[in-house]
Amino acid sequence: MENLESYYQSRFAARTRRIQASTIREILKLTQEPGFISFAGGLPAADLFPTQRIAEATQRILLEHGPQALQYSTTEGYPPLREWIASRMPGASPENVQIVSGSQQGLDLFGKVFIDPGSKVLVEAPTYLGALSAFNPYEPRYISVSMDEEGLRLDELEAALEAHRPRFMYVLPTFQNPSGRLMGLERRKAIVELARKYQTPILEDDAYAELYFSGQPLPTLYALDQALGGGNVVYLSTTSKTLAPGLRVAWVVGPKPVIQKIVYAKQGADLHSPTLNQMLVYELVRDEGWYRAQIERIRQAYQTRCNWMLSALQKYMPEDMGWIVPQGGMFFWLTAPEGLDSLELLKQAIEEKMAFVPGQPFFADGSGKNTLRLSYSSATREQIEEGLRRLGRAAHRMLGRAPVG
Amino acid sequence: MENLESYYQSRFAARTRRIQASTIREILKLTQEPGFISFAGGLPAADLFPTQRIAEATQRILLEHGPQALQYSTTEGYPPLREWIASRMPGASPENVQIVSGSQQGLDLFGKVFIDPGSKVLVEAPTYLGALSAFNPYEPRYISVSMDEEGLRLDELEAALEAHRPRFMYVLPTFQNPSGRLMGLERRKAIVELARKYQTPILEDDAYAELYFSGQPLPTLYALDQALGGGNVVYLSTTSKTLAPGLRVAWVVGPKPVIQKIVYAKQGADLHSPTLNQMLVYELVRDEGWYRAQIERIRQAYQTRCNWMLSALQKYMPEDMGWIVPQGGMFFWLTAPEGLDSLELLKQAIEEKMAFVPGQPFFADGSGKNTLRLSYSSATREQIEEGLRRLGRAAHRMLGRAPVG
Repeated sequence: MENLESYYQSRFAARTRRIQASTIREILKLTQEPGFISFAGGLPAADLFPTQRIAEATQRILLEHGPQALQYSTTEGYPPLREWIASRMPGASPENVQIVSGSQQGLDLFGKVFIDPGSKVLVEAPTYLGALSAFNPYEPRYISVSMDEEGLRLDELEAALEAHRPRFMYVLPTFQNPSGRLMGLERRKAIVELARKYQTPILEDDAYAELYFSGQPLPTLYALDQALGGGNVVYLSTTSKTLAPGLRVAWVVGPKPVIQKIVYAKQGADLHSPTLNQMLVYELVRDEGWYRAQIERIRQAYQTRCNWMLSALQKYMPEDMGWIVPQGGMFFWLTAPEGLDSLELLKQAIEEKMAFVPGQPFFADGSGKNTLRLSYSSATREQIEEGLRRLGRAAHRMLGRAPVG
Repeated sequence: MENLESYYQSRFAARTRRIQASTIREILKLTQEPGFISFAGGLPAADLFPTQRIAEATQRILLEHGPQALQYSTTEGYPPLREWIASRMPGASPENVQIVSGSQQGLDLFGKVFIDPGSKVLVEAPTYLGALSAFNPYEPRYISVSMDEEGLRLDELEAALEAHRPRFMYVLPTFQNPSGRLMGLERRKAIVELARKYQTPILEDDAYAELYFSGQPLPTLYALDQALGGGNVVYLSTTSKTLAPGLRVAWVVGPKPVIQKIVYAKQGADLHSPTLNQMLVYELVRDEGWYRAQIERIRQAYQTRCNWMLSALQKYMPEDMGWIVPQGGMFFWLTAPEGLDSLELLKQAIEEKMAFVPGQPFFADGSGKNTLRLSYSSATREQIEEGLRRLGRAAHRMLGRAPVG
């Protein structure tokens, strides 16, 4: 018992080699100090949480349905919420819907059901870091496909599908975390068709679905696949970006054979998501008028913050720093000149009391050293102005140039 | 795409062969019909949920700390709740505590961190069915050790530890689900010592810890191990039996190397448990006087219901049906004469519109065909009387005898 570390090390499962602390998370712990300006966390704006409405709805549920809200419930989830979700997805019925505790749990359960050690999983480069943490314990081998402004490169994608026949492909078509990219309609159609041609199921992560700044939402990959007969897309979305992430209510929609396995997997994983939280979410979204207005409020606020950040980027960044201008979502994705290591830039920025997330961890193939992600969703105008000024100073210093602004 | 079932079957991970529907769960779905009396579910009494108190506390939290309660939070859990838990465990600090979404998630994460395919896991016979569902996807090999009235048989346990050197042993010393057994103090000490001697960590599941009908609680295996130097027991408990299971708030307490791995595993599994629910639980338990009174209320109600069931068992059961008289918890465990298959008895009972859980699924080695579990926690006096009358009729019929009462 003297050395607990080695005692347990020899008892841990092999998969724990891929369950690791993130060095970046450790660095970012420093940024909790006062005076720090951080664009690192992907936090929705807390000032836009419908706190009062949530308080009223919780009260109503507890007083009218307390024993039900506080009791164990079915693994599949609260039936009226599953019905509401199904009603918004073409061709879906409530049996196609599983409620999960955040999209993160959807990713974990999907990984548990689909990934054997060594299974090939096709991902975008970059892709959502949390998906890699969810899949890693199941020990997949990642096939990374690079992206242009519109999303996955079709030629590369087809070559990868043909050569590797992956177990599934994981795609974030709408305001991808981290890159903020919006995949265009033609690209969406082409990807859905390629996936069907190569019989590779798609896991579509649509966490940012509602955060369009303007225009009509594009059809989901799920909807486009339905139009071709359906069955090849499993869809994941959440209330974390529209209501409140602290409630942990999200959902998986998919073909029945997949949902069945996910139900059994969830039963073993946590029995069910909290009953009260599911009832609360339903109580909020059932009022369509209010829910639309809530989303509109978030869209406008994020668009404003995005514009502030765009101005500040233009003002303070070195001229060879590139970025994608978001049409929605919560993130700016920056590409620095080749050779500038964003992890080094982060260390410099921390000296200036400013933080962001370096891009490399979002690449399953370890590339992307010169990329970084900035989140504007929770920032004030002053924080954006001052934070970008500090980042600009750090970047100019690293590039051996005099700062601007 | 024509046959989705076979399309996906060839894409699922090998572990899904051990992620299955439970036939019993399917049978028990029938028992939702009106007129049915079911002692099958292990449901805490909803009439004892502190609904009003929960409504008030939720209100207070949302109005005073709404943005925090609704925002993302750390994977480890709400710090004041972790402190409160640590303060009740000898030798523990908050760094030894991980908040999880129900004990079930604790079991899943523990399995993820400790079980490789083929790893030996020592379990009681019978053991908690939910633990088997949590561990199964990680493909362990179970070593079952039989029990007497006081718990695991020491001679058999020592032989199994010596022969198999399991990865860990999973034990429910207090009012075990399903058997209701309370492990005595000497047995507890002996098991903790054996585990240390054979360097086998113990996972102690203490979900029913507070449900003593009388007398002083016995020390946990965790506390006994601490007295010997500590580090060899990982402890799991929950608010599901004392406050409300629908909140899904539970905890793991263990040595730092284990908790660290569990933190990383949870980060990939669901990021964190709902913030609001954790704050709510802390708001309730921090009032020690009220919390004690709440537990006392549950103890008294369950003891009364247990006594009703004991009388009805004595009145209606065939004389060669045996049972353990519970000293706490929620369950009666019945042993029928050898040769009586309790799954067949369930079918007969369902004819009588009465249900229970057959015992066999609680045995990892497939034994226990003549055992069954009855839950009294949620039943009224009338339901207990009438339900046992029906079960008695079914049992007498199966044994070819005339019913009594």
